[in-house]
Amino acid sequence: MSTTPDDDATTGLPARGVFVSFEGGDGSGKSTQSRLLGEWLEQAFGREVVRTREPGGTQLGRTMRELVLHGEDVDPRTEVLLYLTDRAHHVASLVRPALERGAVVITDRYLDSSLAYQAGGRELDLARLRDMQLWAVDGLLPDVTILLDLDPALLPQRLSATGLAPDRLERSGEQFHRRTREAYLALAAAEPERWRVLDASAGIEEIAEQVRAAVAPLLDRARARAAGAAGDPVDGAGGGTGGEPGAAPRPGGRLDASTVAP
Amino acid sequence: MSTTPDDDATTGLPARGVFVSFEGGDGSGKSTQSRLLGEWLEQAFGREVVRTREPGGTQLGRTMRELVLHGEDVDPRTEVLLYLTDRAHHVASLVRPALERGAVVITDRYLDSSLAYQAGGRELDLARLRDMQLWAVDGLLPDVTILLDLDPALLPQRLSATGLAPDRLERSGEQFHRRTREAYLALAAAEPERWRVLDASAGIEEIAEQVRAAVAPLLDRARARAAGAAGDPVDGAGGGTGGEPGAAPRPGGRLDASTVAP
Repeated sequence: MSTTPDDDATTGLPARGVFVSFEGGDGSGKSTQSRLLGEWLEQAFGREVVRTREPGGTQLGRTMRELVLHGEDVDPRTEVLLYLTDRAHHVASLVRPALERGAVVITDRYLDSSLAYQAGGRELDLARLRDMQLWAVDGLLPDVTILLDLDPALLPQRLSATGLAPDRLERSGEQFHRRTREAYLALAAAEPERWRVLDASAGIEEIAEQVRAAVAPLLDRARARAAGAAGDPVDGAGGGTGGEPGAAPRPGGRLDASTVAP
Repeated sequence: MSTTPDDDATTGLPARGVFVSFEGGDGSGKSTQSRLLGEWLEQAFGREVVRTREPGGTQLGRTMRELVLHGEDVDPRTEVLLYLTDRAHHVASLVRPALERGAVVITDRYLDSSLAYQAGGRELDLARLRDMQLWAVDGLLPDVTILLDLDPALLPQRLSATGLAPDRLERSGEQFHRRTREAYLALAAAEPERWRVLDASAGIEEIAEQVRAAVAPLLDRARARAAGAAGDPVDGAGGGTGGEPGAAPRPGGRLDASTVAP
């Protein structure tokens, strides 16, 4: 069959993107699983894969990250806003354009990290933070969010096994990690249709298989969606208007920015 | 009478700060009036005066300002968030500590600039922007906001008279300035107890006299407030908890963050 530049390489249908986020504590295996998923999507499906991360997925984000890590001391609200600004720019300049051209975007951390760490680990108002996050990304939620869930008690041995520097973990302490884990599990429980909670203490290949099982149906769905909209213009949709593929309202999702408009 | 380091230099009473913001378009005379007010407060009252500005009142703010002006293109939401982050840091690290030690803080632009330019000049949701602004500054509003109101039609002749570069103005155009002016006037009309609208086409000394008339009662009020709370601890109140002097709910004010909590 013939293909055009707008066509999906395997089906000949116009492509729509899929947005996958990985969440979990440092040392839970997010980068490994993100890489394995990306390789599988490229090799088995010939999909364009964009692997990225927050914070720091753009140059502006990297500069801002430096400001947080090495600059003046910043208060908690400023820190929330630095991450939020990084996220808004990351979505507008990288994630949304990639989804619009049909890529699979895999991000190591997304807005749930802010909700788990800043509302869970610290004590800021969750509903308000969620509202601000959704405003910043113009309502764009992942099609699936994979939580690599790990008991903080298992972290020290994992870190010594992987050679990861334990400084960030040591700095914030086990109680912080317990609160963050609980916050993640609560977020997952509130939106079960978006989240998959995987046991990060399992073997790498076992987890990778579970990740593939979570993502595979989305590829079909994206294809079906694309088929249904085959007559619609895909290019030139413009940025920031909502209604892009990945921004489609989640079935039963609770985090739709449009429902909290003042 | 004897004074301690916590005392107001002119009264011997514990001092509380006063927060003054200047608003208006470029070329409306904000810096001139800010300087004249500061000199008057220092010379006639012996008050500590902190003159500052947004964006760019802190090093982090200056870095972020560079990111907006000279960095990658940013979308409107990212731009809002860059200014918001600058503001949160400015308030937490400079404005609030100065108010807590009893200074008069005079800022050239504050959150109303974002509301007027970003909701008025562009087309973002005003209620949501206002809510985010108040969250970022933990509810801190100026005791008085002075709008130097100017018909955009008068701008070109003022700029050629002052030698100010007209590039920013030329770039955004007269229609933008008209919308921004209307947005400022609407904000002032919604909170008349906080705003003073002055005709910026009047003479410098005439305006300065009106500015002094707007600020003088606040010095008395701050002194009375301080006298009433003379037995209360002033130092060590901690940051970010609300309830600081300048964060006191405004009589009749509509922009209290606590009323919009989710």
